[in-house]
Amino acid sequence: MPACLVQGASRGIGLEFCMYLLRGVPNITVIATCRNPGGATDLRALQAKNPSNLHIIPLDVIDESSIKQAANEVKQHNGGGVDLLINCAGILHPSGRGETSLRDVSSQKGTGAFGQHAQNKQTHAAVMANISAKVGSITDNGLGGWYSYRMSKCALNMATKNLSIELGRGRNKVICVSLHPGTVDTELSRPYHKNVPSEKLFSTERSVQYLMDIINGLTMQHTGKFYTWDGKEMLF
Amino acid sequence: MPACLVQGASRGIGLEFCMYLLRGVPNITVIATCRNPGGATDLRALQAKNPSNLHIIPLDVIDESSIKQAANEVKQHNGGGVDLLINCAGILHPSGRGETSLRDVSSQKGTGAFGQHAQNKQTHAAVMANISAKVGSITDNGLGGWYSYRMSKCALNMATKNLSIELGRGRNKVICVSLHPGTVDTELSRPYHKNVPSEKLFSTERSVQYLMDIINGLTMQHTGKFYTWDGKEMLF
Ligand SMILES: NC(=O)c1ccc[n+]([C@@H]2O[C@H](COP(=O)([O-])OP(=O)(O)OC[C@H]3O[C@@H](n4cnc5c(N)ncnc54)[C@H](OP(=O)(O)O)[C@@H]3O)[C@@H](O)[C@H]2O)c1
Ligand SMILES: NC(=O)c1ccc[n+]([C@@H]2O[C@H](COP(=O)([O-])OP(=O)(O)OC[C@H]3O[C@@H](n4cnc5c(N)ncnc54)[C@H](OP(=O)(O)O)[C@@H]3O)[C@@H](O)[C@H]2O)c1
Repeated sequence: MPACLVQGASRGIGLEFCMYLLRGVPNITVIATCRNPGGATDLRALQAKNPSNLHIIPLDVIDESSIKQAANEVKQHNGGGVDLLINCAGILHPSGRGETSLRDVSSQKGTGAFGQHAQNKQTHAAVMANISAKVGSITDNGLGGWYSYRMSKCALNMATKNLSIELGRGRNKVICVSLHPGTVDTELSRPYHKNVPSEKLFSTERSVQYLMDIINGLTMQHTGKFYTWDGKEMLF
Repeated sequence: MPACLVQGASRGIGLEFCMYLLRGVPNITVIATCRNPGGATDLRALQAKNPSNLHIIPLDVIDESSIKQAANEVKQHNGGGVDLLINCAGILHPSGRGETSLRDVSSQKGTGAFGQHAQNKQTHAAVMANISAKVGSITDNGLGGWYSYRMSKCALNMATKNLSIELGRGRNKVICVSLHPGTVDTELSRPYHKNVPSEKLFSTERSVQYLMDIINGLTMQHTGKFYTWDGKEMLF
């Protein structure tokens, strides 16, 4: 039974990932995290429709104890295995002490339900997709500005690369990638939409469809890399 | 009169930059910052020998009000002009609210005393050298580990690139680079020296000599880039 953990699922792209997975993958277990489940109206409505497949867990990425507690709760579900981890709410461990939690991530091995396997031969146990942004590429940066957002996405890309190395060893390999979802119509981007031509502004449905196409095609060859919604590799 | 600001100057590479500049550049004003001037014995001894050329100012990079106060004090010296800024103590604005201080940096224009000018034609007003580290390159990362150090240096490299764009406009251009000093024998690196072959372990003198050679050769063509001690360009 495939299990997927969507971190930052109360709205926007994260919520859309939950809907997509529940709709498209039979018997899936989706574990959705957000800071305040009580206030996450849309996510709760989705749970009412999928009572046995969707579990909501509180998690605030800037509170390390909340991350540990969520990790323990995840272990209660589906035997603790995670096939696909979508990190949507920015970086996973802004505490700067994230090293301590890597052991926990590695121990929650999945069944390899996502990503592409070579001729029925299982090549990886799970996929981790960190939702980054094109503006997190130093090489591509031609405009400046957005200091803290750019710096945090760039740091997230370093985390992706680091995790790909450590989780690419041993038997239960995890494919780790950074993904740019395009410019997506969400609360996050709405204040800056003015100058985006309408054909370049994606709905969350469209963006998640693109990202899931990438995720489903991933192999260990892609680990540690950074892709835009159209599957193009970005330089860091 | 050339002026240089060395941020993180109490010991190690930063202290060595102060010594190098006071020894080598006639009539220089060196403004040295550190968290606790009272406890910075070596820096104070250097000041006793250079009472009119070396000024010590307190600055803690994790305290934004201390950064602002230091910026105001810098303006009292040498007409507020800074020709060379060495950021040694990791990142400049870990508050995540660093955007607000860029205006202050830009207003402290220098005379272009450092870096190379084309046939006596002044091409830039100042140089900013951010002391980064090779492990801050995502592309070069083949070993993993060191999560927070790697992520912070990578974010610093993004800041260098961003600053190079914004400070590369207008009349008083600032050349902004990230520099890797090599593996240098300081308090920071000492616990990890064990496996470094002695010919690869630089003294602070040697490292600063290499870095100053790079700095003195810089032109606007180099801005936004990342160099190792031997002048080789690093990918981000
Ligand atoms: N939209 C775009 O155009 C675009 C472009 C490039 C990259 N991205 C990236 O895509 C990801 C999703 O963004 P979005 O556009 O879907 O934004 P969004 O609609 O504003 O959703 C943001 C999500 O992050 C959660 N979140 C914020 N801070 C959190 C914290 N401290 N702990 C846990 N959760 C937290 C929010 O949950 P709460 O309900 O708790 O607030 C919400 O679920 C982000 O990483 C963003 O940088 C978006
Ligand atoms: N040594 C190496 O092999 C090596 C290699 C690559 C890169 N680097 C980089 O080189 C730079 C200098 O390192 P180093 O080897 O010279 O280390 P060091 O001898 O330990 O000196 C570190 C300096 O940073 C200052 N500092 C630390 N935290 C600070 C804060 N919050 N606010 C202000 N100042 C602070 C310290 O001042 P206090 O007196 O206040 O503690 C000290 O002057 C660092 O950015 C380091 O990452 C070093």
